[in-house]
Amino acid sequence: MEKGDVKLFGIWSSPFVLIVKWALRIKGVEYEYIEEDLSNKSNLLLEYNPVHKKVPVMVHNGKPIAESAVILEYIEETWKNNPILPDDPYERAMARFWCKFVVDKLSPPIWRLFISQGKEQEEAYALAIENLKILEQELQGKMFFCGETIGLADISIGPLAYVMPIYEEITKLKMVDAERFPLLCAWMEAFLNSPVVKDSLPPGEKLLLKYRALRESFLAKGNK
Amino acid sequence: MEKGDVKLFGIWSSPFVLIVKWALRIKGVEYEYIEEDLSNKSNLLLEYNPVHKKVPVMVHNGKPIAESAVILEYIEETWKNNPILPDDPYERAMARFWCKFVVDKLSPPIWRLFISQGKEQEEAYALAIENLKILEQELQGKMFFCGETIGLADISIGPLAYVMPIYEEITKLKMVDAERFPLLCAWMEAFLNSPVVKDSLPPGEKLLLKYRALRESFLAKGNK
Repeated sequence: MEKGDVKLFGIWSSPFVLIVKWALRIKGVEYEYIEEDLSNKSNLLLEYNPVHKKVPVMVHNGKPIAESAVILEYIEETWKNNPILPDDPYERAMARFWCKFVVDKLSPPIWRLFISQGKEQEEAYALAIENLKILEQELQGKMFFCGETIGLADISIGPLAYVMPIYEEITKLKMVDAERFPLLCAWMEAFLNSPVVKDSLPPGEKLLLKYRALRESFLAKGNK
Repeated sequence: MEKGDVKLFGIWSSPFVLIVKWALRIKGVEYEYIEEDLSNKSNLLLEYNPVHKKVPVMVHNGKPIAESAVILEYIEETWKNNPILPDDPYERAMARFWCKFVVDKLSPPIWRLFISQGKEQEEAYALAIENLKILEQELQGKMFFCGETIGLADISIGPLAYVMPIYEEITKLKMVDAERFPLLCAWMEAFLNSPVVKDSLPPGEKLLLKYRALRESFLAKGNK
C-alpha cells in the first residue's frame, strides 16, 4: 500500500493528529511521524502550514495538506483500499454530516464545560448532554456511525471516546453514562478496542496531567 | 441532467442557500424551491433537519441533506457533469482547504466587524484584512480559486462577492479595494458576472435594508 513518501507533523496529545494517524493506519500507509513543539514551531511546519501554523500537517511526496477533515478526504481519495466512506453519495453525505455535527455542535460545549465552572459550566453541560442525545439516537441499530466497520464519522468522533473519561474525571461531571447513553458507551468500547485504535492512544496519565493543567490555566485566566 | 426529484428549502437572503443554488445551476439540475419563514418554520423543514432546524435543506428523492458544505459534496458526487472539484486528490484537498479557511477564518471577523463598533470592530477589521491578504495571495496566477472555471472554492467563497459591498456601505469601512486587493476585486467581478451567478443574486436594495436592520439590532443588544 505504499504510494510515495508520507510525513505527518503532529503533537502527541492532539486529537486532530490522532484522527489522521487512525486513517493512515486503516489504509496501512507507512509514514514518518515528526513531533512538533508548539511553543517553538519548526521552520518546516511554518513553511508547510503558513496559513494556520498548526498541526496536523501531512506531507505526501513533498506536498503539504493541513486541516484534519481535509486530510481525511485526501487519504480516502489517494489510498482506495479499506474505504472509510461508503460508495453511496447519500451515505457519504450522512457520514460528513455527523463529522460536522461533532465539530460544530458537540465539541464546543464539551470544551466549554471543561474550561469553566459555575453557571457557564452548567449551561455548557446541559447543551453537551442535549447534543450527546442526538448522537446516541444516530447509533440506533448499528455498532459504528458508519455501519459495521469504522469509517470517517467514527474516526472524526473518535477522540471523544478517550477524552471524555478524562474530562469526566477532572470536572467530576459524568457525561456518557451507560444508563442515559448505552449505545454511545458500547460504541466507545468497540472503538477503543478496535485493532486500529488500540495501542495508538496517548498515555492516559500524561494526558490527564496535561488536561488538568490546561483546565487550571483557563480557570486562572477566567478569574483574573 | 434530471436525476429524480430535487427540492431546496431556503430563505431568499441566506448565502448558504445561494451556494447550493449555484452548484445546482452549474450542474443544470432542475429543482423546486421552497421559501421558508424562519420565524415560523414549516413542519417539513423541522422534519427534514431535526438536528439544526436550519436552511438550506436539499431533499433528493425524499432523502434530506443539511449543511451547505455537505450538500455541495453530495451534488458533485450525484451529478457528475460540469465538475466543481478537480480530479486530482491534491487539488481537491486545496479546494476544500480554502472553503474551510473562509468558514473558519475569514467569515467570523467580517461578521464581527459588521455587528460591532469601536475597539471590537477595529480588531475584527484588522483580522479580516489579514485574512483577505491570504486569500489575495492564493489568487496569484489564476482567475478563479479553482483555476479557469468556477469550482467548489469559488462557490463557497462566492457570497463574499456580493455581501462585501453591502457590509462596506453600511459600516463605511472599505475592505476589498482595488489597490490592496486587485486580484480579489477581479475575482469578485468575474464571479458576479459569470452566467451561473448573474441574475441569481438577491435584490440589492432589499438585502441592504435587511442587513442594516440586522446590524442595528445587534448594536442595540450590545448597548443594553
